[in-house]
Amino acid sequence: MADPRPIGVFDSGVGGLTVLREILRRTPGEATVYLGDNARAPYGTRSDDEVRRFSAECLDRLVVENVKALVVACNTSTAVALPELRRRYDLPVLGVIRPGASAAALATRTRRVGVIGTPATIRSHAYFDAVKEENPAVEVYEHATPTLVPLVEAGHLSGPDAEAAVADALAPLLGRRGADGEFIFPLPPSTQVDTLLLGCTHYPLLRPVIAAAAGPAVAVVDSATATASALAELLAVNGLEAPAGPGTELLHRVFTTGDRAAFAALAARLFGDDFPVVEAVELGAGRP
Amino acid sequence: MADPRPIGVFDSGVGGLTVLREILRRTPGEATVYLGDNARAPYGTRSDDEVRRFSAECLDRLVVENVKALVVACNTSTAVALPELRRRYDLPVLGVIRPGASAAALATRTRRVGVIGTPATIRSHAYFDAVKEENPAVEVYEHATPTLVPLVEAGHLSGPDAEAAVADALAPLLGRRGADGEFIFPLPPSTQVDTLLLGCTHYPLLRPVIAAAAGPAVAVVDSATATASALAELLAVNGLEAPAGPGTELLHRVFTTGDRAAFAALAARLFGDDFPVVEAVELGAGRP
Repeated sequence: MADPRPIGVFDSGVGGLTVLREILRRTPGEATVYLGDNARAPYGTRSDDEVRRFSAECLDRLVVENVKALVVACNTSTAVALPELRRRYDLPVLGVIRPGASAAALATRTRRVGVIGTPATIRSHAYFDAVKEENPAVEVYEHATPTLVPLVEAGHLSGPDAEAAVADALAPLLGRRGADGEFIFPLPPSTQVDTLLLGCTHYPLLRPVIAAAAGPAVAVVDSATATASALAELLAVNGLEAPAGPGTELLHRVFTTGDRAAFAALAARLFGDDFPVVEAVELGAGRP
Repeated sequence: MADPRPIGVFDSGVGGLTVLREILRRTPGEATVYLGDNARAPYGTRSDDEVRRFSAECLDRLVVENVKALVVACNTSTAVALPELRRRYDLPVLGVIRPGASAAALATRTRRVGVIGTPATIRSHAYFDAVKEENPAVEVYEHATPTLVPLVEAGHLSGPDAEAAVADALAPLLGRRGADGEFIFPLPPSTQVDTLLLGCTHYPLLRPVIAAAAGPAVAVVDSATATASALAELLAVNGLEAPAGPGTELLHRVFTTGDRAAFAALAARLFGDDFPVVEAVELGAGRP
């Protein structure tokens, strides 16, 4: 029942590397192929039709690598294209929204969950819907935090500037903490969340700063970790795990449709030397 | 933590009474209010906008009855309107599709599930999507069986005519069984399902006939039973169960927007004397 084929992971850019990193941690015996569609990123401003078409082109390319499962590590693509993508392939296709929503619905004790994401993700209400599917009695407070992706991509992952930007971004949802650690503009208790879902693949890179700003009373749940767990369960339940024990060295490949050097530089800024080798890939080559 | 308020159950017509019946069985301590929008049924041929508007009007009416949770016992309304309905009310709103899909994904051992429903439900791919959300590695074979609702509403719930109609309806999905009980036109083994999901509220009334036609190798799962179980879990997890022990007699009310006598006659034909009293209700009365 063991299956040595790699896992295919797709994102519009580098953000999905947070999901890939969790997959490497959670299922270290699995080979992987990552494809970032940097040439056409970000997807958040694309039409639904474009997101569907681009996503299918990227997954088609990963299928060429003989993958056994596909992970759509892109919130926009998951929200817009997942059902069509599942109809397109016989392979299991996993998105990032349901696993994150499921983890948040399980984590909350007061049944009040906050979700932060890009404006496009929040506008889609995809996390609201997915949390309600898990437990319709959970209240979901959605809040767009448009400043956080630029912050991450500029490499500001810690320090006073990052802390101030995160505190500003979270204040409408969580209130604001004073120097003594107490919330100085607390929201009404009836809207205080006890769980914060990071609904954007970039945000796990700010996780320590976000967790510190949210305080110890708020559980921080991220879709990257939850998706890696869901993938591990998917592989186990369906007999798709890689053969155990020492074998040939596992191959981890990273492709980008954009500039190889720019991708490698950004990946190094965000992930150190976790993803040293980046290959260029062209989509739709040879097509009319 | 006990909550004596009733459960609101909504359907476009009488089909949702199969869900109500399972709720009465599964959570016998709960009061209920049912509303069938018979005046505007069936919803399957309505536009999405109409389905959303009609569903909201019906749930608004149930909310007037001081319900603690809402069950959308209508596949069309669940597929089209559930997210909007969840945004409309602070109350938990449960649909029929996710519980059925979840039960089917758990029941299958070969990871091949068949789904039957009305043409509108099958066309929406709502069950396909929901089963894939539960386990992306499960193959889902969808098949519309348009003859079964008329069969049920005509009161043909058993006997040779019902058996022949069900065998015809299922043959493209399950093959056809000969007089000796063996399948005489079996499909290729790679497409044989081991689980059949009844994706229409009317079909549980044909369950014995369907189960006999499908044979002992196929598990029959229905959304009515699964939804009643999901509701019981929802109430328990969220502290919404009715107070235990003997109290005042539980109230079960049944409303229709259509003709009271016609509803009562059809309910009697399908459910015996389970739902003896039917009240008329008018929606939108007093509105401009």
